[in-house]
Amino acid sequence: MRTTRFFLSTLKEAPSDAEVISHQLMLRAGMIKRLAAGIYTWMPIGLRVLRKVEKIIREEMNDAGAIELSMPAVQPAELWQESGRWEKYGPELLRCKDRHQRDFVIGPTHEEVITDVVRREVKSYRQLPVHFYQIQIKFRDEIRPRFGIMRGREFLMKDGYSFHSSFDDLQREYRNIFDTYTRIFTRLGLKFRAVAADTGSIGGTGSHEFHVLADSGEDALAYCPDSDFAANVELAEALAPPDGRSAATVDLQRVATPDRIRCEDVAAFLDIPVTRTVKAIAIMLNDAAAGSARLALILLRGDHQLNELKAQKTIGEFRFAREDEIAAVLGSPPGYIGPVGIANIPVFADRSVAVMSDFVCGANAKGFHLVGVNFVRDLDEPTLVDDFRNVVAGDRSPDGRGTLELCRGIEVGHIFQLRSKYAEALKCSFLDESGQGQVMEMGCYGIGVTRVVGAAIEQGHDQRGIILPAAIAPFQVCIVPMAYAKSDTVRAAADALYAELMHAGIDVLLDDRNERPGVMFAEMELVGIPHRVVVSERGLAAGKFEYKGRVDAESQILPMTEICQFLKNRLCAA
Amino acid sequence: MRTTRFFLSTLKEAPSDAEVISHQLMLRAGMIKRLAAGIYTWMPIGLRVLRKVEKIIREEMNDAGAIELSMPAVQPAELWQESGRWEKYGPELLRCKDRHQRDFVIGPTHEEVITDVVRREVKSYRQLPVHFYQIQIKFRDEIRPRFGIMRGREFLMKDGYSFHSSFDDLQREYRNIFDTYTRIFTRLGLKFRAVAADTGSIGGTGSHEFHVLADSGEDALAYCPDSDFAANVELAEALAPPDGRSAATVDLQRVATPDRIRCEDVAAFLDIPVTRTVKAIAIMLNDAAAGSARLALILLRGDHQLNELKAQKTIGEFRFAREDEIAAVLGSPPGYIGPVGIANIPVFADRSVAVMSDFVCGANAKGFHLVGVNFVRDLDEPTLVDDFRNVVAGDRSPDGRGTLELCRGIEVGHIFQLRSKYAEALKCSFLDESGQGQVMEMGCYGIGVTRVVGAAIEQGHDQRGIILPAAIAPFQVCIVPMAYAKSDTVRAAADALYAELMHAGIDVLLDDRNERPGVMFAEMELVGIPHRVVVSERGLAAGKFEYKGRVDAESQILPMTEICQFLKNRLCAA
Repeated sequence: MRTTRFFLSTLKEAPSDAEVISHQLMLRAGMIKRLAAGIYTWMPIGLRVLRKVEKIIREEMNDAGAIELSMPAVQPAELWQESGRWEKYGPELLRCKDRHQRDFVIGPTHEEVITDVVRREVKSYRQLPVHFYQIQIKFRDEIRPRFGIMRGREFLMKDGYSFHSSFDDLQREYRNIFDTYTRIFTRLGLKFRAVAADTGSIGGTGSHEFHVLADSGEDALAYCPDSDFAANVELAEALAPPDGRSAATVDLQRVATPDRIRCEDVAAFLDIPVTRTVKAIAIMLNDAAAGSARLALILLRGDHQLNELKAQKTIGEFRFAREDEIAAVLGSPPGYIGPVGIANIPVFADRSVAVMSDFVCGANAKGFHLVGVNFVRDLDEPTLVDDFRNVVAGDRSPDGRGTLELCRGIEVGHIFQLRSKYAEALKCSFLDESGQGQVMEMGCYGIGVTRVVGAAIEQGHDQRGIILPAAIAPFQVCIVPMAYAKSDTVRAAADALYAELMHAGIDVLLDDRNERPGVMFAEMELVGIPHRVVVSERGLAAGKFEYKGRVDAESQILPMTEICQFLKNRLCAA
Repeated sequence: MRTTRFFLSTLKEAPSDAEVISHQLMLRAGMIKRLAAGIYTWMPIGLRVLRKVEKIIREEMNDAGAIELSMPAVQPAELWQESGRWEKYGPELLRCKDRHQRDFVIGPTHEEVITDVVRREVKSYRQLPVHFYQIQIKFRDEIRPRFGIMRGREFLMKDGYSFHSSFDDLQREYRNIFDTYTRIFTRLGLKFRAVAADTGSIGGTGSHEFHVLADSGEDALAYCPDSDFAANVELAEALAPPDGRSAATVDLQRVATPDRIRCEDVAAFLDIPVTRTVKAIAIMLNDAAAGSARLALILLRGDHQLNELKAQKTIGEFRFAREDEIAAVLGSPPGYIGPVGIANIPVFADRSVAVMSDFVCGANAKGFHLVGVNFVRDLDEPTLVDDFRNVVAGDRSPDGRGTLELCRGIEVGHIFQLRSKYAEALKCSFLDESGQGQVMEMGCYGIGVTRVVGAAIEQGHDQRGIILPAAIAPFQVCIVPMAYAKSDTVRAAADALYAELMHAGIDVLLDDRNERPGVMFAEMELVGIPHRVVVSERGLAAGKFEYKGRVDAESQILPMTEICQFLKNRLCAA
């Protein structure tokens, strides 16, 4: 492509309402234009990126044995009433009436439609399994659309649905698509992690999310660099420390810690690591028998955070105790409470606390802590020991194959074992080998295609603009001639190089405008073209081109005859 | 692709509500499935055809210098209010409200959105011309959706919009896209004609329709096989016969023609060609001065049909006369009226009538006609001579390069010179070289992508099913092995041939099912695969495959070593 035949329209400054970097850069690079809240036109340079993402997804889905079809965006309400989601979906579902006053929705997802297709098409176990997918526009009427195309209302999605005669076969396909998604995100050139997900309200059992790693991600993840393990921080298990509890070495002592409430402050005051402190969190358990609530303590190491989900799973429903409830039982304000010297109060200890010795905790007296505290000698063993906290960097990986790191991620893919949720509601069944009717097992698999583009930019950018992997960059290479219009030799060489690279199958942009070099360099960097070749009279006189990679600190001078092979090597290596 | 990895689902009989052949065959071939009235899922085998059509359109549009982008399906009402179409469009426009009660439409077309993009992006003559296009879902809430995807509500369209600094430049691009469309429909392998179109209510001046020729087409077309001329029958000009009027050779005579009213019947009764007869059509002209209507006659050759559009253009507004009005002036029932012996009655003669001599017409008396009628001798020259009729087969082509044929067509493309209609309404202007603000000139160019598929099938089918050009067939070639499952030699040979054809870049389907040959043959023919290779043990023993083209009467036996080249030649020739 030549710039003069293309449409580039960049901005120096991002509009002030663009909150996240991908939104700012996509607007500045002219990739998208806002039409309405959460609704964007994909401009030519943005569409090139989107189409490359689409193509990689399509190729891999086809290779995985999924079969592409295309379902309508406008769907009759009847199917949504049949599945029950007409009522359940809420205002995110855009509804409308046609000229005959019949209800329709603009599809936010296609479980109903595909299940309807399959129940009418597939009658026998011999037609199973089957996996259909599409790459298609969806609409979700987000209450607060934001972050550009990262949380838009109209978006492009790859959604696939598989149907099976048995749960075993669903699991086989689930693994197949797990591997396929791994190949897709690898080919896209993104750093990503697959994490076991809470299936939440979407239904079914068994689910993984695929996250592109980026500091700005909405989700906190824990992963093990030495293995495949990754999980949402909230779901990752914190193992017990490998070494057991040491023996007590010091005496129990009561020390004044005036105005020190937080463990970090107490540790600093006592000049000990915060990992030697224990914090007690007072909660109220429902005592159904007594018809009242009962105080209890959860013990965590000073540097750890409570994970309420885990705690409730072990302890059951609870709420945090009020100051007056704490004072009534422990005679102390919240900042100084601890597990020593209390009776008939359940104590739930995190695994990390259970192995501590010579630790520091509140003394149940305002302004005082206890130091040199030891289980058995100074207080009873905890009522119950379990995992009550979020993992932190450095924790052992639950798979035992290294230590955990923390990062943030942007969810771009999600795979579910839906089982029979929709098949049951829409009566999607088949005849098995013995002629018996059975409800199908179903999986669904989504990739937010538009979102992938935003996530890739959240992961790849610098102060000069967008940095994209060559696989999905709007162009792989740009040729920037110095004085294309004025210099016949430059123009001839640039045109020849352009033809050579095109012939080699490289997706190249020749910037044949009459612009100053600085403007051209800045624009090519802003829009994220990974490789740049400068053609100048001085270089040509020496038989050389100047090459610079988007993330390179320095440019390189290369013989004209070698540049094509050089670029091919670079692109293969990427 | 292997059939066992694909999804084929054909029907023996088409559902009874499918009226046209393309709808019947697309349902039978499993290309589409109805979701709601006028809303269809494109099943895998149909989607393959659709995608091939899309690809050819995209390649040619890119080559023509148009730039692809992608606009949203859901559009804010404000833009439609600005253009005035929010009120004008009527119930075909599907409207909805989002969760904040803001009005939106599901776009039936994108003039407003693209004009909004361009008015915000393009400020200077230096950025013009620019031509943006997209291939995107549209929704038009047809009152009576029918004919499957031929007149559906949700459909796929290629819509392009060009913007120019002058009318000259718009006309240049219009010709460019006219040529591009010609290349597109040629590459699609379709018989088609571009016809000058009435611009109707869409606005602007200068417009052509592209029609795929098919007997079932809704539009009647006239075209010249020896030139590029084509037009809607209603718009094609009927030239005057090349030879002038001959001299009278017989006397005027009044003959009884009892109960013969229609020209054909009179001609048969008199044993003369109907081309020697003249029919008179009585009309009422508005006589504004007299405040009343006045009777007049239009004369047409007996075998010609009145074209009211042409007549009104020449004569002005008129209506057909009632029997009592005719009787009051001419003293005759309508079937026997004529232009002889009347006074003060305007006579408008078609060009073909004006050159006639010795003709037959009504005698203005019930049951009688005149024969041997001649202008000047028996009646005055007509008040006015012009083109008042539809062309018929055999007429001279208006471009003077042959004679016309008639056919029927399905409109699949339409190009318009919109001029400033939308640019004016939406204030889309640019600064010209002198710094003056000017409104842009605009063109728009559409192809009904889904409709192309239906039209191709209307053009190509037989009693066995769909016949598609290789360029858009779901697969180019099918391999049908006899006893794939049972015979190791057949399986090995079929697999090897499959690999060889795939390697040669041929889009091939290997029917590796365990079906009877008759079932496989019938399905491959039904879905429109243009080339078939049969692999059998008997053939292999002789080193041969059996080849049959979809439209061939007989199959051919070909050496195994030659089949690949043979198919490549066939596909190139197509």
